[in-house]
Amino acid sequence: MFEFSLNKSSGPAAPRLGEIVTARGVVPTPAFMPVGTYGTVKTLTPEELRAMGAGIILSNMYHLYLRPGVEAVAQLGGLHRFMHWDGPILTDSGGFQVFSLAPFRKVSDAGVTFRSHLDGSSHFLDPEKVVALQEALGVDLMICLDECPGYPAPEDEVRRAAARTLEWARRSRAARKNPEAALFPVVQGGMLPELRREQAQALRELNFDGYALGGLSVGEDKELTWEMVAATTPELPQDKPRYLMGVGTPEDLVAGVALGVDMFDCVLPTRNARNGMAFTNGGRVVIKNAAYALDPGPLDDACDCYTCRNYSRGYLRHLYVSREILAFRLLTFHNLYYYLDLMVKMRQAIAADRFAAFRREFHQNRLNGGKASG
Amino acid sequence: MFEFSLNKSSGPAAPRLGEIVTARGVVPTPAFMPVGTYGTVKTLTPEELRAMGAGIILSNMYHLYLRPGVEAVAQLGGLHRFMHWDGPILTDSGGFQVFSLAPFRKVSDAGVTFRSHLDGSSHFLDPEKVVALQEALGVDLMICLDECPGYPAPEDEVRRAAARTLEWARRSRAARKNPEAALFPVVQGGMLPELRREQAQALRELNFDGYALGGLSVGEDKELTWEMVAATTPELPQDKPRYLMGVGTPEDLVAGVALGVDMFDCVLPTRNARNGMAFTNGGRVVIKNAAYALDPGPLDDACDCYTCRNYSRGYLRHLYVSREILAFRLLTFHNLYYYLDLMVKMRQAIAADRFAAFRREFHQNRLNGGKASG
Repeated sequence: MFEFSLNKSSGPAAPRLGEIVTARGVVPTPAFMPVGTYGTVKTLTPEELRAMGAGIILSNMYHLYLRPGVEAVAQLGGLHRFMHWDGPILTDSGGFQVFSLAPFRKVSDAGVTFRSHLDGSSHFLDPEKVVALQEALGVDLMICLDECPGYPAPEDEVRRAAARTLEWARRSRAARKNPEAALFPVVQGGMLPELRREQAQALRELNFDGYALGGLSVGEDKELTWEMVAATTPELPQDKPRYLMGVGTPEDLVAGVALGVDMFDCVLPTRNARNGMAFTNGGRVVIKNAAYALDPGPLDDACDCYTCRNYSRGYLRHLYVSREILAFRLLTFHNLYYYLDLMVKMRQAIAADRFAAFRREFHQNRLNGGKASG
Repeated sequence: MFEFSLNKSSGPAAPRLGEIVTARGVVPTPAFMPVGTYGTVKTLTPEELRAMGAGIILSNMYHLYLRPGVEAVAQLGGLHRFMHWDGPILTDSGGFQVFSLAPFRKVSDAGVTFRSHLDGSSHFLDPEKVVALQEALGVDLMICLDECPGYPAPEDEVRRAAARTLEWARRSRAARKNPEAALFPVVQGGMLPELRREQAQALRELNFDGYALGGLSVGEDKELTWEMVAATTPELPQDKPRYLMGVGTPEDLVAGVALGVDMFDCVLPTRNARNGMAFTNGGRVVIKNAAYALDPGPLDDACDCYTCRNYSRGYLRHLYVSREILAFRLLTFHNLYYYLDLMVKMRQAIAADRFAAFRREFHQNRLNGGKASG
């Protein structure tokens, strides 16, 4: 089952409160989905994700398809059992990965032929197969195969990719066999607001469970990102969730929510943690800085996560400098907690009709972060 | 405070049951101490160590002295607070590390000059300084600086090192300022049983809180190791704990307990986990083996640890092959749980007067491990 209830909205491109209801749990929106590319949110256990308030996670069909293989995951009981996460899972179709990772690819209306970035082996995926593979994984939310043009790209290429993405969404919809798993198409259209509007309108008519906004945050100026989002959300049905793919920083989450986005995912909190960077209420902390060597304070004074309650910056720096795995765990835990907590705060602000004030304070706090910010 | 109560013993070199009592907790013996070299038992949190039944952990003065520095740990509240572990901690003096890791060293009766294996910087440690540094860390059990001869080594060198280690034990005892922390000398003596006996007798007269057996498992045949242990334990006071340093495999723990050893530490369970090797009741499992790719069973059928309750071999293999940090966590958790559980089983067997039967079954089970053993 998949349902979305919109509980509060103040306009077509304005902050909204809702709930995604699946057989595996209810997720309040706006929601951030921790990324578990290979069937693991890097460094963490599912129990830790639950404890920090994660309600839904994202995994990646392209990556699991290449390793260990969708058939292997299915034989081991499906993705939930495989990774021991019993909440909802959304899988990205892999469209973006084929276009960003594969060393070779050839796209036609039929589908896409590409070589694996792991071993160079050759593969063919089409919209039908991508739906079938996601159904075999047993996930709760599926994404249609899309074509993601590069940036910048010639206008005819962007238009061709958008048209193909739309046609592939139609085919994906027809190929669907399991009504229990939701299916979202991807709105493409490059940096052409009119094209994005058209795409959104056309996909809306096909009446999907929700809608993903793709091809953004691919190198363009932030201003352009938000112009595209603002062009798209008003054209999408109000009573369906909107998912902004692969975006972004804490500032991006706030900007996205402001424009009516309901779902986000991004590798930043997990990847940056492994690179020693923490997101805090006072701004970014680069933990290897010598200034933290004797610092007895927590990573983030305003945070009550496991890491901040129990460990000093001095200890975290020591672990990180020593390349200890616990450093990556503790920083990942904090960063995801920070992201999920930011979503909680935004939901509370929307509920209390004070999102605009929240947004001003959010930016003000980061400006006042003092020596901790960056 | 530090007390040891011997609750059951069947002879001078036979299995014993006891309790180490410290201000930070009571530890039943025979005990295995997980190794936390740099102030972290690699990949795990203190809560996880507690959950798997660890009562005491080991850290290393030499490593902490070089990074982040003892003064830094002291400024950050001492080693317990630094690493967020509130149970007892034993620190090795660093004698073994100076002799095994330092690229240059010069030993005299005064002490040892060596270069850091991290940055080549020059350092001098003597018995008094090593006690003072361990007191500054705030640990519960300290080890005297010793000289560990290589193996094989000329007899005169072995004798000189043993004499020096004995003299250093005297000086360490005199240098001690904090009566709350226990102090153990190290029995050296190479592979000369008579010399080990003499050393044990001489150290016994100095009346320490407990006694460490050092310079073993350094490349000699296993038979020789146990001959040295068997020569030593009868000469040590019955009412003081005996700690066999850096040993060993599960088989070694069983053999050591059989000879009256009370305390063990070893990097094998943690290091091998990071190399993809699991200790199980059926023998060793090398998780990357292709045979496990579709295996839905747990790592160890007879284990009820977190890893074995929740994850399949197929998933663990996938994580390990993908170099996912969660693989190292889950394998480390299992291996340490296996070691600690083995100690529980040995204590139960001693209490029930069936250690000999336990030992036979232990070896039998490993021979019958079938395809999982190795």
